[in-house]
Amino acid sequence: MTRRYAVIGTGALGGFYGARLARAGAEVHFLLRSDFEHVRQHGLLVESKDGDFTLPQVNAYCDVRDMPCCDVVLVALKATQNHLLPDLLPPLVSCGSVVVLMQNGLGYEDEVARIVPTCEVLAGLCFLCSNKVGPGHIRHLDFGTVRLAKFAADGAPAGVSDDMQAIAEDFVQAGIRADTSDDLLRARWQKLVWNVPMSGLSVVLDADTRALVTEPHTRALAEAIMREVVAGARTCGRVIRDDFVEKMIDMTLAMPAYQASMKIDYDLGKPMEVEAIYGNPVRAAKAAGGAMPLVEMLYQELTFLDQRRTAGDRVRR
Amino acid sequence: MTRRYAVIGTGALGGFYGARLARAGAEVHFLLRSDFEHVRQHGLLVESKDGDFTLPQVNAYCDVRDMPCCDVVLVALKATQNHLLPDLLPPLVSCGSVVVLMQNGLGYEDEVARIVPTCEVLAGLCFLCSNKVGPGHIRHLDFGTVRLAKFAADGAPAGVSDDMQAIAEDFVQAGIRADTSDDLLRARWQKLVWNVPMSGLSVVLDADTRALVTEPHTRALAEAIMREVVAGARTCGRVIRDDFVEKMIDMTLAMPAYQASMKIDYDLGKPMEVEAIYGNPVRAAKAAGGAMPLVEMLYQELTFLDQRRTAGDRVRR
Repeated sequence: MTRRYAVIGTGALGGFYGARLARAGAEVHFLLRSDFEHVRQHGLLVESKDGDFTLPQVNAYCDVRDMPCCDVVLVALKATQNHLLPDLLPPLVSCGSVVVLMQNGLGYEDEVARIVPTCEVLAGLCFLCSNKVGPGHIRHLDFGTVRLAKFAADGAPAGVSDDMQAIAEDFVQAGIRADTSDDLLRARWQKLVWNVPMSGLSVVLDADTRALVTEPHTRALAEAIMREVVAGARTCGRVIRDDFVEKMIDMTLAMPAYQASMKIDYDLGKPMEVEAIYGNPVRAAKAAGGAMPLVEMLYQELTFLDQRRTAGDRVRR
Repeated sequence: MTRRYAVIGTGALGGFYGARLARAGAEVHFLLRSDFEHVRQHGLLVESKDGDFTLPQVNAYCDVRDMPCCDVVLVALKATQNHLLPDLLPPLVSCGSVVVLMQNGLGYEDEVARIVPTCEVLAGLCFLCSNKVGPGHIRHLDFGTVRLAKFAADGAPAGVSDDMQAIAEDFVQAGIRADTSDDLLRARWQKLVWNVPMSGLSVVLDADTRALVTEPHTRALAEAIMREVVAGARTCGRVIRDDFVEKMIDMTLAMPAYQASMKIDYDLGKPMEVEAIYGNPVRAAKAAGGAMPLVEMLYQELTFLDQRRTAGDRVRR
């Protein structure tokens, strides 16, 4: 692999993909915060259903100004940290670098494109069950596919670039399933179909994904919310097949009992990606003339929980 | 007062109204379960914004077969205990007795009418903020109005009977605001307008009523749910004025921070009145050709929480 990678945010997601790329021979530079000292000394430990491994020597940094300029920057921060990107991204890129936004939700690629106007901006949609269980310690439970899609300022399908293909091939060389989509907006809405009900209901009902799709009432609710997201996508001009909802339910039933990352954030007292996954899609559908009342209700419930905690009020659990 | 009263369920509600009637001179017989021994020895203690009082001598029973036949039976059990009524009611009534169902929700008067076919059956809608804080110890926080409405098997408005008037006058003599409605179904839907959002969201979001109407997102959600209940009532042929929603929000803002009784039940690990307050109204609206999607979502969320706990699974908090 000839491309030099930067990973911004070395957690359950960035740590996993970055470690896999590095193990396969890529030059990878990791930006860390709380785990910096630990990872600098001990490297990364990945427990994975595909086989455990350690990466004892890691290019670890706690300051982006110490990092080299990279060909590909994988942004694996939570969307709640995107206010940091104007400081983090410019030192890492040069003209022609590619920035891959490996986040959930909707509506942040245009911000990134404004920060690094000479870079190609991609969405990297990660279908990954992975948790960070300790400093530099990642537990990969299931899946792992990455879907790349190119951002265009007008929101239209932007095709598949050579860079996208090359990056996807690097992932495949690292043993990661990777594919490309020519339509970023459709790919993002499609991912929301699972994410919106499963992340939010996990938090509100203090439940794992298996419990939610096993109990008949919450399973029916998850299906209704999924159908609403499919309708919201259609309002925004993106068609998702109706049987996709059934596929998502079946997939969740087949998955191990999983704590959605939003649920983990909530339990740890961290901010949740409420605007990325709920607020922005609700507003996008409304702007296009559609409504998603159940999604909006989940948005309101989650905002209440998120803000109460941020306000320093009592914490549940 | 010449009527002899029975109170089935001497908790926050039955204990409060029964004690007020007894203090005003009515003959009141109280059925208790867990608090029986305590109340038999120490009587009832009511802390109230209208003035604290104790009732040292109480006609307390733990078995309905020891109780005398009564003119008026106030049913103040939770609706989740209504399966006990076929055993509890017949020994207490004779032909011409009146049974007042002082419960929340929809759809149980017909069951009562089948159990005691020779009795007049009333709904007694209680606008009361009251909690039981210890054995035989009731804390009355606010409000207290009782609205009586007569049940008719065909569901139609059934007018105001002499018995209703007389019972309302007994309550008024006891210092309780009481009025009558000629339309039970409309009165029950009207009460649901507040109850549905406030009880359910309190449980799901672990919040008191003040917090819910102060935070803008949950306030908007509560209003949306209230409007949906108003629309559900209309589907069932009952018109509630649109400005009633605004009135309910304003009233909640003016109330002290209140733990809805469903929230208290949940926190204590008791079953919640999910079918009475959510399941039955959702089904009634559907049967009449309407939908209440937000109420149904709350129903599904609450059922999940209720059943998980009943199933002996881990308890939140």
